[in-house]
Amino acid sequence: MKNISASIVSIGTEILLGEITNTNSQYLSVELAKMGIDVFEHHTVGDNRKRLLEYFEKALAKYDLIIATGGLGPTVDDISKETACEFFGMDMVVNEEVLEYIKKIFVRFGRPMTDNNIKQAMFPKDAVMLKNRAGSAPGCVLEKKGKRIILLPGPPNEMKIMFENEVKPYLAQLTDSIVYSEVIKMCGVGESAMEEMVKDIMEESVNPTVAPYAKTGECRLRVTAKAKNIEKAKELVFPVVKKLVKRLGEFVYTVGNDTLAEVVVKKLIEKKLMITGAESCTGGMICSMLVDCPGVSAVLNESFVTYSNDSKIWLAGVKNETIKKFGAVSVECAHEMAEGLSERSGADVAFAVTGIAGPDGGSEENPVGTVCFGLCVNGKTVTEIRRFNGDRTNIRMRASVFMLDMIRRT
Amino acid sequence: MKNISASIVSIGTEILLGEITNTNSQYLSVELAKMGIDVFEHHTVGDNRKRLLEYFEKALAKYDLIIATGGLGPTVDDISKETACEFFGMDMVVNEEVLEYIKKIFVRFGRPMTDNNIKQAMFPKDAVMLKNRAGSAPGCVLEKKGKRIILLPGPPNEMKIMFENEVKPYLAQLTDSIVYSEVIKMCGVGESAMEEMVKDIMEESVNPTVAPYAKTGECRLRVTAKAKNIEKAKELVFPVVKKLVKRLGEFVYTVGNDTLAEVVVKKLIEKKLMITGAESCTGGMICSMLVDCPGVSAVLNESFVTYSNDSKIWLAGVKNETIKKFGAVSVECAHEMAEGLSERSGADVAFAVTGIAGPDGGSEENPVGTVCFGLCVNGKTVTEIRRFNGDRTNIRMRASVFMLDMIRRT
Repeated sequence: MKNISASIVSIGTEILLGEITNTNSQYLSVELAKMGIDVFEHHTVGDNRKRLLEYFEKALAKYDLIIATGGLGPTVDDISKETACEFFGMDMVVNEEVLEYIKKIFVRFGRPMTDNNIKQAMFPKDAVMLKNRAGSAPGCVLEKKGKRIILLPGPPNEMKIMFENEVKPYLAQLTDSIVYSEVIKMCGVGESAMEEMVKDIMEESVNPTVAPYAKTGECRLRVTAKAKNIEKAKELVFPVVKKLVKRLGEFVYTVGNDTLAEVVVKKLIEKKLMITGAESCTGGMICSMLVDCPGVSAVLNESFVTYSNDSKIWLAGVKNETIKKFGAVSVECAHEMAEGLSERSGADVAFAVTGIAGPDGGSEENPVGTVCFGLCVNGKTVTEIRRFNGDRTNIRMRASVFMLDMIRRT
Repeated sequence: MKNISASIVSIGTEILLGEITNTNSQYLSVELAKMGIDVFEHHTVGDNRKRLLEYFEKALAKYDLIIATGGLGPTVDDISKETACEFFGMDMVVNEEVLEYIKKIFVRFGRPMTDNNIKQAMFPKDAVMLKNRAGSAPGCVLEKKGKRIILLPGPPNEMKIMFENEVKPYLAQLTDSIVYSEVIKMCGVGESAMEEMVKDIMEESVNPTVAPYAKTGECRLRVTAKAKNIEKAKELVFPVVKKLVKRLGEFVYTVGNDTLAEVVVKKLIEKKLMITGAESCTGGMICSMLVDCPGVSAVLNESFVTYSNDSKIWLAGVKNETIKKFGAVSVECAHEMAEGLSERSGADVAFAVTGIAGPDGGSEENPVGTVCFGLCVNGKTVTEIRRFNGDRTNIRMRASVFMLDMIRRT
């Protein structure tokens, strides 16, 4: 069977009430994409027989495969397996092997086994069994006329182990293609401007496909190819990635998994440059992003949050008259913060951020969202000023990304 | 209209590929449940006109309301609004007010506006407009014969601000019962231990209901009542909240929306205490959490990231022999960091964190996750040592929450 199409369903009223985050669908999407299985929809439905039957009918009319998580437990609310069997018109019998296994688990936990646990051992005779190595409820694959429902437990740890060990080998028999992606990450360019730059490449690409998306302060292009094996897929992906990276130039900060902070830290380690900073409105956020990267100790000794005017003066050596004349939120102040810090700390790279994150403190001249940046690298200082949108947290996030990108480029 | 039924849809191929976690559906589920609106399904569909039309048709045949997130951006992939208009048979025209707003944003960012941004300003004439205070794409409500589609942007920060400020008041007009919640926030107690403490109250409560949930390093109880109006709902909620708070004692840091950092900052402002810190493994995260609170300038002048041993010595006044004898990750070092910083800065409250966030650097004695805390308040210093689970980011997060809670209690 080629090009298997799939729908992922999460079963449980608690998800519809927002009581738990649904991470299963994302995990399954990533794994199925790697196997070349096309996921066309995610769906969540409560513990309701009628609505679940409706979903099975609609989804299997369109797609080859349903992967369902949740509703395999022992309580009366757990109806996934019963409803799937009803849908396919299959009878259930006690699977003695599974019953033995469940009994053993209860002995191990020292808990009494109740009658409703027996329901976890009931399956149709020709179901493909999926062992549960982390819990009591086994999963199964039900098939009729080439349409399949795979039933997995809801707890993510049980589901993942079952998928990895039992479902993957089962699905591998059914497909004969794989999918491979590379992600190009960019800063300093908006999503629409980026798209304008590479419109022709995006339009002419069929396999691989090129798709844009955005994140706070960043944007990305995903290049995805489908092929018989990973080598063939890479042969399709790499030339297009190369072409895109050449076109997009210095906006690109990496191809792959690294975060912007990781790219900056790796560059600093490579060039043996020590970094330090003076943060006002970002309040340590930039330094915290750097410290999130393992190995940062090679390039970071210390950093400063200079929130008050006085601290900008005594820690970073800003002149009193600079603040009086231009204000603390000015490129002049950012310039002196970076330069002063560089002199005092002896670091090769000194960055400085000062701005108005709001909600108060804005003026006509410097509205909320105004942020000034200074960067002193080996004695040479450059500055920038930007206005960001959003609430206090958002403005601080965007300013942090901007500063990291400025460090990367310089 | 009574008992509104809803379907939540997330639109975007990147979700089906598993590239982003869908947190919007959970947020919306919680908010709609609070308003007494019944959510019957979550759905995710790719950027595909045909499949989106199919979904609109099926969902509105069954439910009163669709809340859609994503696909409002400027690129050709963004088709939510266009497809919803096609479904309802509505024409779009340029909304001059929105166009002016988008133009202003581009001027502010200093970026060129491209033709495809104009599409973000096109709406049906009788659409209810929803302002976007954090991005360029406004949302809207489309209505036909009592069936409604509410279109919201995909980025969670933009979506949440829009829901809170624009959608909530709109939906409030449509329902005639309201749901009111108060959240009790706690630190320093695990979820199951907390549940044991208040089991009897949880079991006897029907309206209001009492539901527990957990967050990194914190746990919470939500007390929710349904009533005709807000006054009646509050009458039901408050006595139960009072009873729970009394039982849970000092674990409770607030009832309401404030974050732990906000509670700390408000207490400092009230008591007129200046704060400063020396952060090693948390790398500025704690200070950044404090700076996220508006008004922090009244209590924070400066703070320090003392990552290297040298910086602990020259910035916080730790003795060389202390580090030699006990190591940088020791309660002795944390003690001297807090005390030294207090003396040097003159701040009333000086906190210090030093630990091993991993993935490397652990030893048998001090495994990864070991974090030492020092806190000097008006010259008196206390210390703590804890071992946290998780990856680097997680350990740093838990350590930050622990430090803030220690400041709150002292």
